[in-house]
Amino acid sequence: MASNSSSSRHQTARHRLSIIAGHLQRPADSDAALLAVDCKAQANKPNVSAGDRSEGRTVPRKRQEIMKWNGWGYSDSRFLFNKKGQAEFTGKRYRLSGMIIPGLKDWMESTFGANLQHKTQATPALNSSAVQPPTLNEVFVEELKSTGIPFSHEAEDRVFRGHGHCLHEIFALREGKIGRVPDMVVWPSCHNDVVKIVELACKHNVCLIPYGGGTSVSSALECPPEETRSIVSLDTSQMNRILWIDEKNLTAHVESGIVGQDLERLLNESGYCTGHEPDSMEFSSLGGWVATRASGMKKNIYGNIEDLVVHIKMVTPRGVIEKSCQGPRMSTGPDIHHFILGSEGTLGVVTEVTIKIRPIPEYQKYGSVVFPSFEQGVACLREVARQRCAPASIRLMDNEQFKFGHALKPQVSSIFTSFLDGLKKFYITKFKGFDPNRLCVATLLFEGDREKVLQHEKQVYDIAAKFGGLAAGEDNGQRGYMLTFVIAYLRDLGMDYYVIGESFETSVPWDRVLDICRNVKARIVQECKDKGVQFPPLSTCRVTQTYDAGACVYFYFAFNYRGLSDPVHVYEQVEHAAREEILANGGSLSHHHGVGKLRKEWMRETVSSVGMGMLKSVKDYVDPNNIFGNRNLL
Amino acid sequence: MASNSSSSRHQTARHRLSIIAGHLQRPADSDAALLAVDCKAQANKPNVSAGDRSEGRTVPRKRQEIMKWNGWGYSDSRFLFNKKGQAEFTGKRYRLSGMIIPGLKDWMESTFGANLQHKTQATPALNSSAVQPPTLNEVFVEELKSTGIPFSHEAEDRVFRGHGHCLHEIFALREGKIGRVPDMVVWPSCHNDVVKIVELACKHNVCLIPYGGGTSVSSALECPPEETRSIVSLDTSQMNRILWIDEKNLTAHVESGIVGQDLERLLNESGYCTGHEPDSMEFSSLGGWVATRASGMKKNIYGNIEDLVVHIKMVTPRGVIEKSCQGPRMSTGPDIHHFILGSEGTLGVVTEVTIKIRPIPEYQKYGSVVFPSFEQGVACLREVARQRCAPASIRLMDNEQFKFGHALKPQVSSIFTSFLDGLKKFYITKFKGFDPNRLCVATLLFEGDREKVLQHEKQVYDIAAKFGGLAAGEDNGQRGYMLTFVIAYLRDLGMDYYVIGESFETSVPWDRVLDICRNVKARIVQECKDKGVQFPPLSTCRVTQTYDAGACVYFYFAFNYRGLSDPVHVYEQVEHAAREEILANGGSLSHHHGVGKLRKEWMRETVSSVGMGMLKSVKDYVDPNNIFGNRNLL
Repeated sequence: MASNSSSSRHQTARHRLSIIAGHLQRPADSDAALLAVDCKAQANKPNVSAGDRSEGRTVPRKRQEIMKWNGWGYSDSRFLFNKKGQAEFTGKRYRLSGMIIPGLKDWMESTFGANLQHKTQATPALNSSAVQPPTLNEVFVEELKSTGIPFSHEAEDRVFRGHGHCLHEIFALREGKIGRVPDMVVWPSCHNDVVKIVELACKHNVCLIPYGGGTSVSSALECPPEETRSIVSLDTSQMNRILWIDEKNLTAHVESGIVGQDLERLLNESGYCTGHEPDSMEFSSLGGWVATRASGMKKNIYGNIEDLVVHIKMVTPRGVIEKSCQGPRMSTGPDIHHFILGSEGTLGVVTEVTIKIRPIPEYQKYGSVVFPSFEQGVACLREVARQRCAPASIRLMDNEQFKFGHALKPQVSSIFTSFLDGLKKFYITKFKGFDPNRLCVATLLFEGDREKVLQHEKQVYDIAAKFGGLAAGEDNGQRGYMLTFVIAYLRDLGMDYYVIGESFETSVPWDRVLDICRNVKARIVQECKDKGVQFPPLSTCRVTQTYDAGACVYFYFAFNYRGLSDPVHVYEQVEHAAREEILANGGSLSHHHGVGKLRKEWMRETVSSVGMGMLKSVKDYVDPNNIFGNRNLL
Repeated sequence: MASNSSSSRHQTARHRLSIIAGHLQRPADSDAALLAVDCKAQANKPNVSAGDRSEGRTVPRKRQEIMKWNGWGYSDSRFLFNKKGQAEFTGKRYRLSGMIIPGLKDWMESTFGANLQHKTQATPALNSSAVQPPTLNEVFVEELKSTGIPFSHEAEDRVFRGHGHCLHEIFALREGKIGRVPDMVVWPSCHNDVVKIVELACKHNVCLIPYGGGTSVSSALECPPEETRSIVSLDTSQMNRILWIDEKNLTAHVESGIVGQDLERLLNESGYCTGHEPDSMEFSSLGGWVATRASGMKKNIYGNIEDLVVHIKMVTPRGVIEKSCQGPRMSTGPDIHHFILGSEGTLGVVTEVTIKIRPIPEYQKYGSVVFPSFEQGVACLREVARQRCAPASIRLMDNEQFKFGHALKPQVSSIFTSFLDGLKKFYITKFKGFDPNRLCVATLLFEGDREKVLQHEKQVYDIAAKFGGLAAGEDNGQRGYMLTFVIAYLRDLGMDYYVIGESFETSVPWDRVLDICRNVKARIVQECKDKGVQFPPLSTCRVTQTYDAGACVYFYFAFNYRGLSDPVHVYEQVEHAAREEILANGGSLSHHHGVGKLRKEWMRETVSSVGMGMLKSVKDYVDPNNIFGNRNLL
C-alpha cells in the first residue's frame, strides 16, 4: 500500500538521479518519502522552516482550552446583553471586542420580535455522562500505542470533533443532546504518522473521519449514526508546519493541518501571503479547503483553492496519491488533483500541499458604494465583471443587510445613538433621494501597487456612477470586512433569544441573479408563514463574488422560533425549500460550502447519473472498505 | 442508457417548472433533451443561430477535397524549392502564400547539411489496394443505415482518420505504408446522432474512436493494431453549429465538431471571440480541445480550455454526462468536468460545450524584444510573470530560433538577400554589442483597451530593459506570430530533403527552466551523435507560456537522416531520451499535447499508482467493454 508506493517512488527518484549528475537538492518531504524517516528526524533537518510545531499555532490539541464546546469560535469572545441591556462583544481578540453595539438590541427586537426577557438556556458545560462510552477497537488501539502518536478517548475531545457548525448541530449541543461522536481522536504530527494511522485503520477495519478546522456547514463532520465500527477522528491540527518556502517559484509546501490565520501570519513573516481568506480562516485548515473546494474573499487576485494548489499529497487506503511534478499546468489525462479537490474526506487524508504564495501587497484600500436599488447594484457588479476589473473583493449587500450593518456599529462616542437615529442620519445627510428601504451597499477592497490601486479604484467608481452608485467612503467598506469574523458569533446570541438561523450560498449565471435573490427570499418568507413561524423571518442576500459567467450569492435566513414545538425541523424544511428554489432558478447546489450529508439528495441531479457513477467508482477503488466512512457526497 | 438519463432529466425539468411559474426560456439543447427531436427539426428552430451547417465551415465530410493525405494542412499550400532553387510557399491562403523565402535554402543547407540534390520521394497518392479491406460489423451497419447518419467505408476516408501528425505517422504515409485504420467513418450531425451511434456501438460491440480535427501529436488517433472488432471513426466535423450565444452571460453553446477558425470567425460576426488560439486552430475542434486539455496562445487573457468551459455534455456507454447547472464555479464534490477534460477519447464523445466568450478586443499590438542572452530573456519572462503583467502572449525563442525566424523572412524587395547577409545586417545595424550567437528574441502580443494596452506595453518594456532587453519593433513580433500557422508545413519540406523532426513540450517550475532548456537540448545532440546521425541536429527551444509557478517550454528537434537505415527508430529513441531528460529535470509529461499512446509508459510515474487506479476505475465504470478503445492514456 503506502510502502509500495514509497519504494516505487524511490526507484523513480534513483533513476532520475542517474540521468543527471549534481541534481538539485530535493526538499524535505521527498527525502521523507525516500527514507521513511519519522517526524522527529524531520524536525531536526536544517531546511525545515518555521520552527517548532506549537510555536505560533492557534489550535491546541485540546481545543476546549480556547474554543466553545457548543457555539462558534473562541470561548472568550461572545455577544451578550449587559446589565444595561446594551449589546457587547466580550474578549480582546477582535476590533469589536470590549465595545458596546448600541443598535443591536433595537435591531433584534424589530427584526425578529425578539425580547430580552425571553432568553433560552444553553447547557453551560458538557455533561460527560451524556456521551456514549466509546466503542474501541482494542487491537487498533494497541498497535496505535506503539506508534507513539497521541490519542484520546475522553468525552470532551470526542464531542468536539463530532460536529461542524450547521444549525441543528449547535442547537443539539446547546440542549445537551449528544448523538454519535467519534470513539477516539488521534493527532498525527506529519505525513508519515497519517500513513501509519491509515494502515492500521485498514488493517483493523476502523472508520476514519479526517478533522481539520471543524467549521463544516454541510453536516460533513457528523458521525453516521449507523456506523457500528469504531470511529476515529483524525485531527490534523498538530500537523501544521510550513515545510519549505520556495521564493524562486513563489510556492510553499505546507502540512495540511495548518489553519488559515497561522498560515498567513507565518508567511507574512517572510513577506508573503497566500491571500486565501475564507470567512472561516481563523479555524479552517488547508486540508479542509482542499477537501471542500474552498473559496476565499480575495479570490479575484489570488484565485480559489483549485487555482492556488500546485501539488497535493493524500494518503488513501490504496496508498499515497500525488503527482510527480510541480509544473504549473499539465495535460496528463484527467487532472487527479480534481479527484481530490471536493472529495470531502471520503477518499483519504490530505497531508501536504504545495500552494502558491505572493508578495504581501504594497497597499490596501477599502471602499464602499451606495446604490439606489439592489437591481442597480447587481447591474454594476455585472459590468465590473464584464470589464474584468473587479477589485480584490467586491460584495453587494441588499437593503436588509445594509440596515443590519448599521445595527452592528460599535459605539464610538459617549452619545447613545439608537439604531434608527443612526440610520436616518446616514441617509438624510448623505444620500438624499435614496429610498432608505431600497438602497443597498457594495463594499470594496483593493490591493496591490499603490498607483495601480488608485487607477483601478477610479475605474470601478466610474462604472458604479453609471448605475447610480455614490461613493460612501472607506470606513463603511472597512467596517463591512472587519465584521466578517464576528458575524459567526451572532448566531449564538440569536439562539440565546429564541432566534435561529443559517447562511447558505449558491453560484448562478448573471442573468439569473436578480430572480434568484427575489424568488429565494420570497420563498423563505412564504415557507415560514406556512409553517407557523410567528414573526416574519430575516431573509436577506448578498452578491459576494463575481465571475465572468456569473456570481456567488449568499443568503442569511433567521427567525424567532417561540411558539414552535420543533424549531429545528421547521428550519430544515424552510432551508430545503430554499435550496429547491435556488436549483429551480438555475443556481448551483453550492459555490463553496460543499455537499456533505446535508445536500446529498441533490447530487444525482447535479452531476447526472453517469457523474455519480464516476465518483462512486473512484470511491470504490480507492476505499473499498469505506474506511473513510463519513458518508459525505454519495 | 442515454434515454434513461434523458427521461430523468425530463422529470427534473418538470419538477423545476412546477416550482416557479413563467420560467425563463430554455435554450435549444435542453429542449432537445426533453423532446428527443432530431437534428433537422432543431435546425428549423428560430433560436438556433449561425445558419446552415455547411455555411462558413472549413472542413467538408471528404477531407481529401481540401487537405493533404500524407502531410500537414491544405493540399494547395506547401513549401517547395522552385526551379531557381528558391524556397516558395504555394497557394493563396496565408500571408506567406505566393512569396519567395530567400534565406530558407541556405539555412536548411547550413543547419542540416541538407542538399537540394538529395530529395526523397513521397508516395504522391494513396493506393487504395494498400489499405486492408474493412472489417465490417454487418448488423451494426444495417442498424446504422436506418438512422440516416452518413457513413463510409471507402479507403481514402478511412486512411484520413487513422492517423494524427506524429512524425512516424506521416513518415509511414509518405512511404505508402498503411497500418490499421478505421473500418468505417460516420458523420453525426448533432448530439442525438451521437447518442444513436454510441448505443449501436455498445449493442454490437463496435470500437468507436472519436475524431475531431485529426491534429493529435500523441499517437492518440492511431488505431490499436490488436483491435479485432470493427473500428468506427466517429468524425464530429459536421456537428459544428453554434446553438446559441448568450450575451448576458457572455457564453456560447457550441457543437463539439466546430474547428477553431470557424468558431472564431462565426463569433466575430457578432462581435465576440473565445480567444482560444492553439497553433492547430485551423483544424482542431472544440471537442478535441476538451479531450486533450488544450492550451491557446492567448491564454493569459482568455484562459486555457479548463478556464473557458462552463458546461460540457458527453455521450458515454453509460449514458449522457453533464452537470445540471451553468453556475460559474461550484463545490459539488470533485469536478466532473475534470474527469472529461483530458480523457482523450477514452470515455465517450463530447457533443456540446458551453464556452465563455469575450467582446473582440478594441486594439491589438505586437512587439518584440531582443535580449543579449537566453538567460536574461528567461529572467525577464519570470519577472513579468511575478508581476502578473504578462501580455496576451509572450514567447521567448532561443538563438537558434531567432536565426530560423530570419530564414523564414519572405522576400519583399527585388534585391536578393542571403540569409547570412540579412542576419548580419540585423545585428550590426541595430544591436551592436549583442553577440549574434547568443542573442534571443521575445515576441509579444497585447490586446484590449487601447489606453490600457499602451500602459501595459510600457510596463513590460521597462521590465525587459532591466534584463538588458531592447525593443525590436512590432514587425518582428507580428512576423513571429504570423509564422505560427505555416511552421507546421515546414516539416513536409524537411522530409522532402531527408530531414525529419518534431516538436514536443513540457511545463516546468521557473527555477528549472534554464536547466531544462540546456540539458534537454544537449541530451538531444548527444543522443543523435551516439546513434550515428551524421550531421548535428537542430535542437532548439522556446519559452512559450508563463504562469505564476512556472512556464511552458517548447522544443523543436530535427535532423538529417541520410545514412541511417531506420531513421524513424532513431528519431523515436532520441525523443524518448529527451522526455526522460525532461522528467529528470522536473518537467511535466506534457503541458498541452497530451499523453495519447506516445507517452503512456510514464503515466504511472506521473500520477502515481493510486492516480492510475482512479483513472482506470472511472474508465471501467463508464466504458466496461472498452467501446472507446483507442487505448490512450492507460
